[in-house]
Amino acid sequence: MNGKKNAIQMQLEKDYESFLENKVIPYPTWQYGEIKGTLIKLEVEDTPNFGDTAYIELDSGRTAFISVDMQTDFCGPNGYVDVMGYDLSLTASAIKPIKKVLDTIRDTDIQIIHTREGHSPDLSDAPYLKVLRSKIIGKGIGIGDKPESGLGRLLIRGEKNWDIIDELYPLPGEIIIDKAGKGAFASSNIHLVLKNLGITHLVLTGITADVCVHTIMREANDYGYGCILLKDATGATDQGNCDSAIKSIKMQGGVFGNVSDSDKFVKAINEANLTKDEKD
Amino acid sequence: MNGKKNAIQMQLEKDYESFLENKVIPYPTWQYGEIKGTLIKLEVEDTPNFGDTAYIELDSGRTAFISVDMQTDFCGPNGYVDVMGYDLSLTASAIKPIKKVLDTIRDTDIQIIHTREGHSPDLSDAPYLKVLRSKIIGKGIGIGDKPESGLGRLLIRGEKNWDIIDELYPLPGEIIIDKAGKGAFASSNIHLVLKNLGITHLVLTGITADVCVHTIMREANDYGYGCILLKDATGATDQGNCDSAIKSIKMQGGVFGNVSDSDKFVKAINEANLTKDEKD
Amino acid sequence: MNGKKNAIQMQLEKDYESFLENKVIPYPTWQYGEIKGTLIKLEVEDTPNFGDTAYIELDSGRTAFISVDMQTDFCGPNGYVDVMGYDLSLTASAIKPIKKVLDTIRDTDIQIIHTREGHSPDLSDAPYLKVLRSKIIGKGIGIGDKPESGLGRLLIRGEKNWDIIDELYPLPGEIIIDKAGKGAFASSNIHLVLKNLGITHLVLTGITADVCVHTIMREANDYGYGCILLKDATGATDQGNCDSAIKSIKMQGGVFGNVSDSDKFVKAINEANLTKDEKD
Amino acid sequence: MNGKKNAIQMQLEKDYESFLENKVIPYPTWQYGEIKGTLIKLEVEDTPNFGDTAYIELDSGRTAFISVDMQTDFCGPNGYVDVMGYDLSLTASAIKPIKKVLDTIRDTDIQIIHTREGHSPDLSDAPYLKVLRSKIIGKGIGIGDKPESGLGRLLIRGEKNWDIIDELYPLPGEIIIDKAGKGAFASSNIHLVLKNLGITHLVLTGITADVCVHTIMREANDYGYGCILLKDATGATDQGNCDSAIKSIKMQGGVFGNVSDSDKFVKAINEANLTKDEKD
Repeated sequence: MNGKKNAIQMQLEKDYESFLENKVIPYPTWQYGEIKGTLIKLEVEDTPNFGDTAYIELDSGRTAFISVDMQTDFCGPNGYVDVMGYDLSLTASAIKPIKKVLDTIRDTDIQIIHTREGHSPDLSDAPYLKVLRSKIIGKGIGIGDKPESGLGRLLIRGEKNWDIIDELYPLPGEIIIDKAGKGAFASSNIHLVLKNLGITHLVLTGITADVCVHTIMREANDYGYGCILLKDATGATDQGNCDSAIKSIKMQGGVFGNVSDSDKFVKAINEANLTKDEKD
Repeated sequence: MNGKKNAIQMQLEKDYESFLENKVIPYPTWQYGEIKGTLIKLEVEDTPNFGDTAYIELDSGRTAFISVDMQTDFCGPNGYVDVMGYDLSLTASAIKPIKKVLDTIRDTDIQIIHTREGHSPDLSDAPYLKVLRSKIIGKGIGIGDKPESGLGRLLIRGEKNWDIIDELYPLPGEIIIDKAGKGAFASSNIHLVLKNLGITHLVLTGITADVCVHTIMREANDYGYGCILLKDATGATDQGNCDSAIKSIKMQGGVFGNVSDSDKFVKAINEANLTKDEKD
Repeated sequence: MNGKKNAIQMQLEKDYESFLENKVIPYPTWQYGEIKGTLIKLEVEDTPNFGDTAYIELDSGRTAFISVDMQTDFCGPNGYVDVMGYDLSLTASAIKPIKKVLDTIRDTDIQIIHTREGHSPDLSDAPYLKVLRSKIIGKGIGIGDKPESGLGRLLIRGEKNWDIIDELYPLPGEIIIDKAGKGAFASSNIHLVLKNLGITHLVLTGITADVCVHTIMREANDYGYGCILLKDATGATDQGNCDSAIKSIKMQGGVFGNVSDSDKFVKAINEANLTKDEKD
Repeated sequence: MNGKKNAIQMQLEKDYESFLENKVIPYPTWQYGEIKGTLIKLEVEDTPNFGDTAYIELDSGRTAFISVDMQTDFCGPNGYVDVMGYDLSLTASAIKPIKKVLDTIRDTDIQIIHTREGHSPDLSDAPYLKVLRSKIIGKGIGIGDKPESGLGRLLIRGEKNWDIIDELYPLPGEIIIDKAGKGAFASSNIHLVLKNLGITHLVLTGITADVCVHTIMREANDYGYGCILLKDATGATDQGNCDSAIKSIKMQGGVFGNVSDSDKFVKAINEANLTKDEKD
């Protein structure tokens, strides 16, 4: 380096100066090339400091909207979360905001991805301690067991309770990623899907905020994806944990990405006047 | 499956019944074989429910103690966290508990691993938005920049500020893992190290609780490692986030593992009367 | 290190000296603990040098037998390989040896894993250039297309041609891993399955030798798994490539593992007098 | 799907028809956007069938040239390959072609990446069986040992023999990736580097053809990168294995990518009239 700045450092200086002036985290065209779809300018909160407002640029043609684990097991009656004894209203609150966003982007070129957490019926891909701990907290009914009044075996692929709820069920042309973990990168084909579709930024929603959504966000952030969480389109089994999950994203100027909400995202989409989707 | 229980399910029933009686999450010898080193019985808190006490069994010969990112950049003067404007005492509080544990286990067969977060001097392995966001919150001084009164470029491998602090510096025979992310599994040789040493369980400490420690814990948990966090041997730039990070581990009976503390761990080690280490 | 040998180096000296005497690559109990199932002593060829014979030790309780991609698409009429114009007999020759091994190990504690290569019907997890190249070589009929006299869309999950052939169809209790790549570690839950079952060594068979089998063997070898290929239980679309794939494993004393065959493996199993499986 | 073609399938039809006419595998702008640097049209051999000639398009701004493991240990005197007893001329033959390509692209916007295979001095990240097998074939001198007339411990990071040879030593601004495996994706920061630099295609060279180069090519291909091997800029410890490694790439219309050579690549660069690099 020898004190001389390289191309990345010069770009950083430029984007930093530009941020000071217009409060926009730019779409990094130096990395990915010119905007491929339509430029979206999304308001994000508490950026860079708590109390500040800023914007992040997205390229509709390189953005995936991800709805994480909106399965009966996590937000419906007699599913896993219900059986564990948590208040369903905390996770179910994400349904309407996600639906609103889906209604807005379903005819755009933004890719729509749904994830499902679940395990093989033989439990071969369910970490043993994960299953055992669930069985203990569930008083004998954990992952792989069928509660007395339940729809099927908890978190087992193929069961009714494992599938995505009707209100948010994927339409043809939308992508479903089945993952065996809280995160997705260790145990699914998500690497391939994101690379194959040329995705650079993720807009995250779904449940639960502090567990699956946060784990995917952390993984994606570590792999270099730009991430934004829509805070009203998520929820958790404990409101305090949900709030902290959201707050922790904002630390250090956005240590895991940025935080926005469904209204701001819909507004940004509408203002961007998106190109029609040609997906199918 | 046909309603017939397979070997995993029968083991689960057995371990569940046993837990009801003795409150112990057993070492899964059905997976990994008989205890290789010495059996350790560690008290964990709020398990399975908040307010409850239970125990988890570890095999000293298959346990790694991990000290995450105890670098000047995260807990020392003029490092990254200091420059970002956070209260150093919140992260530095982890030093003494970690030192106490190291003193206890350094002549045992428990593997000791230290991690360091850092990037190449040319920033090629630093996600661009990560660097840009750090520069914005740091008022022009982010990852890769040298603060006026700083020791070197922030979070750059090879700089003084990037290295582990003197009080906790690895001894010969201890392992150092350099990672480019908050987590470790996406960007380091940690897969190999853990596999090669036959590790099945991780005892986690270090900083920061809600960012790097939690990300590694989530990744390891998803890959099937048994994880325990020592809560006084960690810290964060925000106490509320630290508390929530700890609490969120305990949800769902231990969704990311279990929580203990340095006193309990030292007590468990002492009670186990560990075999001498033959590492070197 | 200071010239002093550490535990790994001392173990290496010991195992090297022992090999000189008895020509056995030992099961590394120093890593994984005492034998959990039954010790198997398998003859491997051209080890360490071409022309030499040696043995490798396996632990039945920590060994997975993997049958790679024995799908109609790779060895049956009107499948992908047939449509590409290759000689089916070259890949179909693996069927009988695999069947023989399955018959031998199906009542032991060796884990049986079958893999299937395939893609989502929407091709979202099929690398674009992979699909395009297949379409070009197939004169318009590639991955995702249905040949005129074919059973279904080539290499698409859920199609008849994509599934495992009847002769080798998995029995209940056997594990199936669906992967989107030639290898498995980048795009499936195989990490979890192997970790969860405590697997340390893989016995590989299936097709094709130089493509999918070799890619999985290379990945597993890099992650630290001990690998052995049964050379008559594999095949490729080109015999020369198949032979070289087998030969390249043996370079450098076993750069990707070792090579044996189905007769030697069956013999080793029979001699070991395996414990009964309690899998189901 | 319902028989209706989606966007990917329609793009495939278009690119297939276009290939029939002009024999060009196009740069997939539908995935990654318009050309960011300069369009390069590289001749590749035996595509789609043996005996045929075709072309593949690259985007200079999204291409990385990778020189794999050109370390003394693999092509210099008293290094690992020499000690194992192989003919050095087979691997050293790659030096000149790589140098020629480097001379051509060093003032362009093509990213230059060098990899090094190596392990920690304590061998913690060296799979045990890998080290043991090397010690056996090396008659007591394997990975981690210092041969009598050697420069240092074989394949150990920091040793003289482990480093890249003088003729090809990276210039400032070029990227070095240290990996603990034959491949790179399981044990290094390569995921991050490629993502961060917006790379979509890799031009591969280096040694050895059938081991490290092929493993990286297979991994990259599985993760969705477009790959091209320059066949005279690689080599192996056995010429037959080298030839087969090259041939196997070409099967199935390019199962791991395409094959070209250094003259063709230099010609393509010269014809493309590349934009000046602004890397530093």
